[in-house]
Amino acid sequence: MFSVTVRDHMMIAHSFRGDVFGPAQRLHGATYVVDATFRRADLDADHIVVDIGRATEVLHEVLAGLNYRNLDDEPALAGINTSTEALARVVADRLADRVHAGDLGEGAHQLEGLVVTLHESHVAWASYERPL
Amino acid sequence: MFSVTVRDHMMIAHSFRGDVFGPAQRLHGATYVVDATFRRADLDADHIVVDIGRATEVLHEVLAGLNYRNLDDEPALAGINTSTEALARVVADRLADRVHAGDLGEGAHQLEGLVVTLHESHVAWASYERPL
Amino acid sequence: MFSVTVRDHMMIAHSFRGDVFGPAQRLHGATYVVDATFRRADLDADHIVVDIGRATEVLHEVLAGLNYRNLDDEPALAGINTSTEALARVVADRLADRVHAGDLGEGAHQLEGLVVTLHESHVAWASYERPL
Amino acid sequence: MFSVTVRDHMMIAHSFRGDVFGPAQRLHGATYVVDATFRRADLDADHIVVDIGRATEVLHEVLAGLNYRNLDDEPALAGINTSTEALARVVADRLADRVHAGDLGEGAHQLEGLVVTLHESHVAWASYERPL
Amino acid sequence: MFSVTVRDHMMIAHSFRGDVFGPAQRLHGATYVVDATFRRADLDADHIVVDIGRATEVLHEVLAGLNYRNLDDEPALAGINTSTEALARVVADRLADRVHAGDLGEGAHQLEGLVVTLHESHVAWASYERPL
Amino acid sequence: MFSVTVRDHMMIAHSFRGDVFGPAQRLHGATYVVDATFRRADLDADHIVVDIGRATEVLHEVLAGLNYRNLDDEPALAGINTSTEALARVVADRLADRVHAGDLGEGAHQLEGLVVTLHESHVAWASYERPL
Repeated sequence: MFSVTVRDHMMIAHSFRGDVFGPAQRLHGATYVVDATFRRADLDADHIVVDIGRATEVLHEVLAGLNYRNLDDEPALAGINTSTEALARVVADRLADRVHAGDLGEGAHQLEGLVVTLHESHVAWASYERPL
Repeated sequence: MFSVTVRDHMMIAHSFRGDVFGPAQRLHGATYVVDATFRRADLDADHIVVDIGRATEVLHEVLAGLNYRNLDDEPALAGINTSTEALARVVADRLADRVHAGDLGEGAHQLEGLVVTLHESHVAWASYERPL
Repeated sequence: MFSVTVRDHMMIAHSFRGDVFGPAQRLHGATYVVDATFRRADLDADHIVVDIGRATEVLHEVLAGLNYRNLDDEPALAGINTSTEALARVVADRLADRVHAGDLGEGAHQLEGLVVTLHESHVAWASYERPL
Repeated sequence: MFSVTVRDHMMIAHSFRGDVFGPAQRLHGATYVVDATFRRADLDADHIVVDIGRATEVLHEVLAGLNYRNLDDEPALAGINTSTEALARVVADRLADRVHAGDLGEGAHQLEGLVVTLHESHVAWASYERPL
Repeated sequence: MFSVTVRDHMMIAHSFRGDVFGPAQRLHGATYVVDATFRRADLDADHIVVDIGRATEVLHEVLAGLNYRNLDDEPALAGINTSTEALARVVADRLADRVHAGDLGEGAHQLEGLVVTLHESHVAWASYERPL
Repeated sequence: MFSVTVRDHMMIAHSFRGDVFGPAQRLHGATYVVDATFRRADLDADHIVVDIGRATEVLHEVLAGLNYRNLDDEPALAGINTSTEALARVVADRLADRVHAGDLGEGAHQLEGLVVTLHESHVAWASYERPL
């Protein structure tokens, strides 16, 4: 099994609902350093997993839809706590939509899976893994 | 599949038995930077994998049982070489006991697996992965 | 010259005023991984720069005064753009006050300088250096 | 499941064939920071996954066969694009040959799998995973 | 004293002349992860050291002049060994020219110094520091 | 001003004397990831600060004199607390002796300064800087 990972980041504000979150119920924020991993069993005709340039661009575009925003005001995220793990799924699902739409090239239809990891600090991170 | 990871560290002395260990048969020591990863298929009602505050506290408490010690003198570790990989299992098993005891909250009973990684330097690390 | 550095982090929301900031004029947020460096020419009687335990606690307390907050609402920060470099000075000045108040121990009065670095992402960080 | 990982690096020149590579079709180069992960279900009689000293040496020897070279001139790599992911397989396969030849010791015959990750920069890396 | 640092990277081929370089006399290559640090005594009217967006763009443009190239063929670098430390100076001097040309904005004329660090691997890096 | 840094590590046991050290008065240990930085105003005739291969070897040899040892039993360290900052000076002074003895080559006599940083964990490190 092969994989390729590209890294980018986003900077957002948000707050959480629920006693479990303690002081994080207040409006605060985070830098998420985001790793997107693309997996497939075999390389394509160019001997790559995915066009790393396109993968970098598509990840950047997906993050641009969340970056420099207060996630509490985003209609698409209404009703969920935008925990690091929940946001990892949001990013992964949006990347999957882009793969299915052909935005990573025709070869990317052979991708089998996707992992998105969001690092919220040097001591905590979360991942979501899904098939494609 | 979702996961959340928290990081802490411990600083211990120990020695190894066996020619394979070369100079590490002498009493020496290590800082282990410890990553504990908690996995589950779905998020809980708060949209999280685990209460990250509690996870951080429980990891710290588990490491406190080993930290600032000469592991050669620990009765619980008698008869084993406290290699990085063997210690990863010790930490993982103690974390699993704490999960089962309810110390990470009721929701943590839905956790499915645990990975513990101990980094012994910038060029070597070891992991142990187990179900919960 | 000797130095000791300890690391912690904080997660805040804020916005910037000024065209130079582009989309960062919107309410967003950041995780700041914060390194506080203490400097002195000679070690103290215990052969240390500073009690690293106390330094860690005092840094944590100083960051707690900013952590999990919307900095736009903090009276103490009114009228300034809380850029990474401006916040580095805020943290450094508050640490200096704590040193002068004796909160890092009597030996800490021999400290000669302080550097605070805030990492806003894996690709950008800022520092403020001052004498003590 | 246990794993042990060791890290080393190599510095090579190469070029790519195919429009997908854009400016990387020109002769350029890369530092690959290489992580080799060895996996097995149980520890051996010394309570280790593999002799970490031997693993480090064998990884270094495998990388020495590629290091400080223009990969475009390597007969063993003729006809392939030496993408990060393709090189991860080359390194993994050569490590597997060394394991099978007994160069990591007799106990290493119980190793079950191998993962090789090549980091080409702080924002991109690729892996190849295979059984042993 | 304040500073702001931005990070980018470049991937180049080159070779060295001189027995001191051993196998690095062969054509090989490197990824350089490049940190550019801008220093000044006081913040500007926007409470920043430099427009971090422009600094990132200008660093990227400077590196684009070297990226994906065989440095042995670059007329501007003829007659020098493109060691990590020598390249740090090349990048720093080109950034200084851009600062003086006003490409980082009018406020950047108050910048007092520049440090460029090139990381050639996880175990070696070099810096060049100069006034502005 | 130019600098070149090389990284290595050592794994030691030790204990501290003095109430300030709390639980670290017990026998424990540490991995120190060690960065040695060599500084000079101008490059030598080969366009380098120092032969990086020799610098790496000499650093490794200096650390070998401390590695895999209980520092409480080292006669050369008797009477001092081997704090991270105190050990940074020990390593720096031993490197300086090697520079003065010509072990880094004749060109190394133009080196002007040395900084040694010991990282004891992901959240704490210490440095010692001295002229040559």
